[in-house]
Amino acid sequence: MQLRDLGERETIRRLTAALHDSASVSVGPGDDAAVLRPAPGYELVVTTDLLLEGRHYLSEWMTQAEIGERLAAVNLSDLAAMAAAPRWALLSFGVRVDRTFESLEELQQGLVAALARDGAALVGGNLVAVEGPEFFSLTLCGEVESGAAWTRSGARPGDLLAVTGHPGRAGAGVALVRELGERARATDLAPVLEAWRAPQSRVALARALASAGVTAAIDVSDGLVGDLEQLCAMSGVGAEVDVAAFASDPALEHAARALSLSLETLRYGPSDDYELLLAVDPARQDACAKAAESFDAPLSFIGRITDAPGLLFEVGRGERRPLAAEGFDHFGGSAG
Amino acid sequence: MQLRDLGERETIRRLTAALHDSASVSVGPGDDAAVLRPAPGYELVVTTDLLLEGRHYLSEWMTQAEIGERLAAVNLSDLAAMAAAPRWALLSFGVRVDRTFESLEELQQGLVAALARDGAALVGGNLVAVEGPEFFSLTLCGEVESGAAWTRSGARPGDLLAVTGHPGRAGAGVALVRELGERARATDLAPVLEAWRAPQSRVALARALASAGVTAAIDVSDGLVGDLEQLCAMSGVGAEVDVAAFASDPALEHAARALSLSLETLRYGPSDDYELLLAVDPARQDACAKAAESFDAPLSFIGRITDAPGLLFEVGRGERRPLAAEGFDHFGGSAG
Repeated sequence: MQLRDLGERETIRRLTAALHDSASVSVGPGDDAAVLRPAPGYELVVTTDLLLEGRHYLSEWMTQAEIGERLAAVNLSDLAAMAAAPRWALLSFGVRVDRTFESLEELQQGLVAALARDGAALVGGNLVAVEGPEFFSLTLCGEVESGAAWTRSGARPGDLLAVTGHPGRAGAGVALVRELGERARATDLAPVLEAWRAPQSRVALARALASAGVTAAIDVSDGLVGDLEQLCAMSGVGAEVDVAAFASDPALEHAARALSLSLETLRYGPSDDYELLLAVDPARQDACAKAAESFDAPLSFIGRITDAPGLLFEVGRGERRPLAAEGFDHFGGSAG
Repeated sequence: MQLRDLGERETIRRLTAALHDSASVSVGPGDDAAVLRPAPGYELVVTTDLLLEGRHYLSEWMTQAEIGERLAAVNLSDLAAMAAAPRWALLSFGVRVDRTFESLEELQQGLVAALARDGAALVGGNLVAVEGPEFFSLTLCGEVESGAAWTRSGARPGDLLAVTGHPGRAGAGVALVRELGERARATDLAPVLEAWRAPQSRVALARALASAGVTAAIDVSDGLVGDLEQLCAMSGVGAEVDVAAFASDPALEHAARALSLSLETLRYGPSDDYELLLAVDPARQDACAKAAESFDAPLSFIGRITDAPGLLFEVGRGERRPLAAEGFDHFGGSAG
């Protein structure tokens, strides 16, 4: 049934009726606001991120549930980068009235399931009819032990630089889809497409690493070098990335060949991987590696923090060359 | 300067640089998420509401600052209806790239000033470029003493029904603008237009009323009768509204004549007044009236709660007739 036939109030009633109670929720959806019970001794960590149709997702390449999962992932990633435990979310929908209720329900189910896997519940929201592209804006609240939040500003010269997952894959995935269309579904490209379509949550890993000597963190949402620039700028440090230190990534190599690009262009360039880029106390390298292993999460030590503010270099293979971000800027200006 | 020339990152940098520090904020805008310090012994109250251009505001009738103030007001009203104190907000912008930075700054300034008047700070956000109508989605977090939040479900038979302000004015204001155009600027219609353009915050009043015997509350965002229906449905009660109990409202009478509608059609019908509709313990009527007086806020006792679930009547003038909501439904379905 289309939303225009169901009406706004009934759509909201059905969407909220599908939500579960949560122990930390005093008043759930359906009142003027939700009332929540924060844990004593914790700080509150809040972020908001949205998906705009055609820009942040392509409906023809994702199921509705996957769009919901992606919306969860982009916000969960921000909390992971603060070492926070996700708790409560609010969803603001902008949807077309010719959409079916069932499709909206499927999207919400994907979102709710992904949030629940990391311990968070959907506690409220807002619904508005739009005529152009749809959008979904999520606000995610989490908790972290007081004073224990990671920030972008704590990296110190001598710290190691580590990254989870396979940076560059998500950007390669969307480039393949845009360039090759259906041919992007080739088997050897599957891990790359998957990284774009269904980013992994690093929340559990971040919580495990919280006491493992991480000094600064940022989520990789603009690309490895772009986000490294941000972390270095906010910490007042520089960094060296060792080209030889990355784990081999045959899927990304396939993608690079298919796109006629270098592996480094994909790895360093614009990519919304939603992986974690971390500065780590070198004395705690083993503790970090062990934690990552126990969560079955790839963690590569790819370089180190230097004392030259704002200067990024690539080292290895016998040379040392400057690294610069080629970030994307949806506003058409320079990303610098 | 247009946003397309400034670029996304620089736009965000300038917007966040304009924000002030707040004592309860450990990490403000510019990191992956904001880190906040909740007050011990309080619950967290969260809501989200958005403004879509052309639907929830008309750019030609409001300054950019007023759009920002309105975005604050629609969210502050939800927290007022829970008797919560606003604390922190996150803003998700969907804006066109041909907009000037200065206009966006003015909108943010209006929002931040309105939030600050009620004790809240903007601590984070998100920015995306859109090609169609712009939108602004705010999530507002507040705090309330544990267990003290008002809900929609606490009204009991015998409670008095009270409303702040002048219900119906905001709906009349937007109807005048749409029907009369420039002629809506007539002096005798000014209070009605003002109610639509710049809704008053009832946060301070709600905080003062929190211990004055209010048993249930809802903010009037759909219209007096529509929201009364909701409050009654959630409390499992009915209500009688006394037509003779409303304060005289000459401005609304002018509007009714200009629109060829009855006063009651405007007063009861669809209207996003952002006023508070309250159920009040009759023993505490004086305490409520005094609190309202001390905040210079109109408070009218307009009827009472009955034990007939879901049944609404208008009484006074010697007759008793059923009241039904003619709510608006942006989805085109019935509002019922």
